[in-house]
Amino acid sequence: MSSQAPHPTLLIPGPIEFDDAVLQSMAHYAESHVAPGFVKTFGETLSLVRKLFQSTNPAAQPFVISGSGTLGWDIVASNLIEKGENALVLHTGYFADSFATCLETYGANATQLKAPIGERPSFEEIEQALKEKPYKLITITHVDTSTGVLSDIRRVAEVVRRVSPETLVVVDGVCSVGCEEIAFDEWDIDVVLTASQKAIGCPPGLSILMLSGRAIDTFKSRKTPPSSYYSSVANWLPIMQNYENFKPSYFATPPTQLVHALHTTLSQITARPMAERFAIHAQASERVKTAVAELGLEQVASKRENQAHAMTAIWLPEGLAPPDVLPGLLKRGVIFAAGLHKQVATKYIRFGHMGVSVTDPNRTDIDKAIAALKEALSEAKQAKGI
Amino acid sequence: MSSQAPHPTLLIPGPIEFDDAVLQSMAHYAESHVAPGFVKTFGETLSLVRKLFQSTNPAAQPFVISGSGTLGWDIVASNLIEKGENALVLHTGYFADSFATCLETYGANATQLKAPIGERPSFEEIEQALKEKPYKLITITHVDTSTGVLSDIRRVAEVVRRVSPETLVVVDGVCSVGCEEIAFDEWDIDVVLTASQKAIGCPPGLSILMLSGRAIDTFKSRKTPPSSYYSSVANWLPIMQNYENFKPSYFATPPTQLVHALHTTLSQITARPMAERFAIHAQASERVKTAVAELGLEQVASKRENQAHAMTAIWLPEGLAPPDVLPGLLKRGVIFAAGLHKQVATKYIRFGHMGVSVTDPNRTDIDKAIAALKEALSEAKQAKGI
Repeated sequence: MSSQAPHPTLLIPGPIEFDDAVLQSMAHYAESHVAPGFVKTFGETLSLVRKLFQSTNPAAQPFVISGSGTLGWDIVASNLIEKGENALVLHTGYFADSFATCLETYGANATQLKAPIGERPSFEEIEQALKEKPYKLITITHVDTSTGVLSDIRRVAEVVRRVSPETLVVVDGVCSVGCEEIAFDEWDIDVVLTASQKAIGCPPGLSILMLSGRAIDTFKSRKTPPSSYYSSVANWLPIMQNYENFKPSYFATPPTQLVHALHTTLSQITARPMAERFAIHAQASERVKTAVAELGLEQVASKRENQAHAMTAIWLPEGLAPPDVLPGLLKRGVIFAAGLHKQVATKYIRFGHMGVSVTDPNRTDIDKAIAALKEALSEAKQAKGI
Repeated sequence: MSSQAPHPTLLIPGPIEFDDAVLQSMAHYAESHVAPGFVKTFGETLSLVRKLFQSTNPAAQPFVISGSGTLGWDIVASNLIEKGENALVLHTGYFADSFATCLETYGANATQLKAPIGERPSFEEIEQALKEKPYKLITITHVDTSTGVLSDIRRVAEVVRRVSPETLVVVDGVCSVGCEEIAFDEWDIDVVLTASQKAIGCPPGLSILMLSGRAIDTFKSRKTPPSSYYSSVANWLPIMQNYENFKPSYFATPPTQLVHALHTTLSQITARPMAERFAIHAQASERVKTAVAELGLEQVASKRENQAHAMTAIWLPEGLAPPDVLPGLLKRGVIFAAGLHKQVATKYIRFGHMGVSVTDPNRTDIDKAIAALKEALSEAKQAKGI
């Protein structure tokens, strides 16, 4: 039994349902951010982030900073690329547009490589683009929360290393870290930025990043100083290194209670092999996608290989919009999200299936949601005479 | 009785002790950041921020953003001043140096007006400086956490309005909001930036700002776009306006659990007149400062009128350093902070007395701390043969 008050099950692509222990760990009594107790918690948390990314290379560095996932874009844009340098932005939905805007805010030239809605740029197009001009970095949205499109970051990284080996491979893993396979060292990735509130299962409020040795070196060889202050790697790098070595350090007060929550959830996640966790998410995803097909519905992510395992973006039947279906789901105790991709937002809904809702064998969230979707759709069609 | 596990009392100048109800409100079940329940909580929280600042002018705008207090500097530096424009930074300790660095990161020219340690620039010096060149903004650290020096922001604002009426008055209120008097509208202040974890009594992780109509107009008349993305007022202003009107809105996922905690603590704070709260802090401060004087100790803040009411920075007797005294305090169940001002950090300690430790009549934190300080000092002197 959960200690949480009765509530509808939150199955949007983040924030997600919380495990009781994670929630309760935020009720820790007040601590000094530089006292031994908290320093130990924070230091261990950073080491757990390495495990989350299956990384053992000491040249790589995890960061946990107070802020939303969006802050990770500023950290990339103001530290790893300089004014007038080029960024190649692979576009699979809403979030690439925003990342490109962020890069341009700090003076980079962002070139977007766009795919039709529900698809992703091909490896050939990526290779071609990389050969056209020197790119300081390439960004890939691992799972675009607006479309449910999954990118193959491993193969993109291979293409980059072959064609343009110095280009930094930057992964926006906000909706993928904790549920999609990421082998940070082995796949030779330079940055993964993410947030706490999706498959990691922590409340929102933490910007989490992993930087490779190559990324840190790129930062250190900048010709100009970092173009932000709060997002400056120069300010945060010594802090993270110190805490991980259990030495107190101060740049800005860390969000102590959220760090406790992150420590708890990462301890749970890394207590089992990451491969097992990815497999559980893939199985749950398969169940959802099979049920969606059985309802005669199509996914926004059009091909099997580009469908995320943590969420499903579902086209509604012609004549139905999200407000026709979401209240029927809520009535049945389930919360899905409306569409987010501006061009088609009124035509689809999003079902998030990650974290405790799929990993906790005592929960029946997914079955309940599939049943609710079937009933709510049928009710909505009847109401509209479809 | 507190529901919190037994622990030493945290009496540093932030984070501070938590009220049980504030801590427990973070254990709220997961919510969508755009669903009616959370939208109401966030909207009400923003209105409560207005009450905290005693502001009723609809042209002013509160902001609550995921981040530490430091993020507020970036928001000022990247939105309210442009490259090559001048900022006058009043220096009363460590934090002015950092704010100046932040302003310069985004291209402003920061001129620091410094006072000797423990003092503050005189009103005559401020007036003189304002006459020397046009300043886009002036920054004042209301209470410098490194020295315990209190600035008279009301009188500084009067000088600015008289001598250079267009200059924005920017107050760093990280260690003052919730314990030192601030009448945002009446004193004609343009920005107060603060954090959640000091006298507001919320866990760390929220950057809280109040911008005047003049500040918003200054932002809107920029010649260049904001020079950051996550800190951009252009990105956050519509979000805050929408939530306050109970309309869901998305730029970055808000830190839902911390917003609940802020809602709880601001509801508690604003349930009583703010004047009463300031008076309680002033009384507690008086008790601490009298006890410090009775122990024959001097304060870093040298004059009565520039001594903060939320903390006391105490010079240690000649021959003693913080590591000689802090363990003796901890042994007696009390945590103070070491010095922070680089030039003199080894010569003083800091005692924070704010929030529930002074406002909750059931707590004896201050008496316990005063007794512990007396004993720990005497023990330390004996050990050193002083």
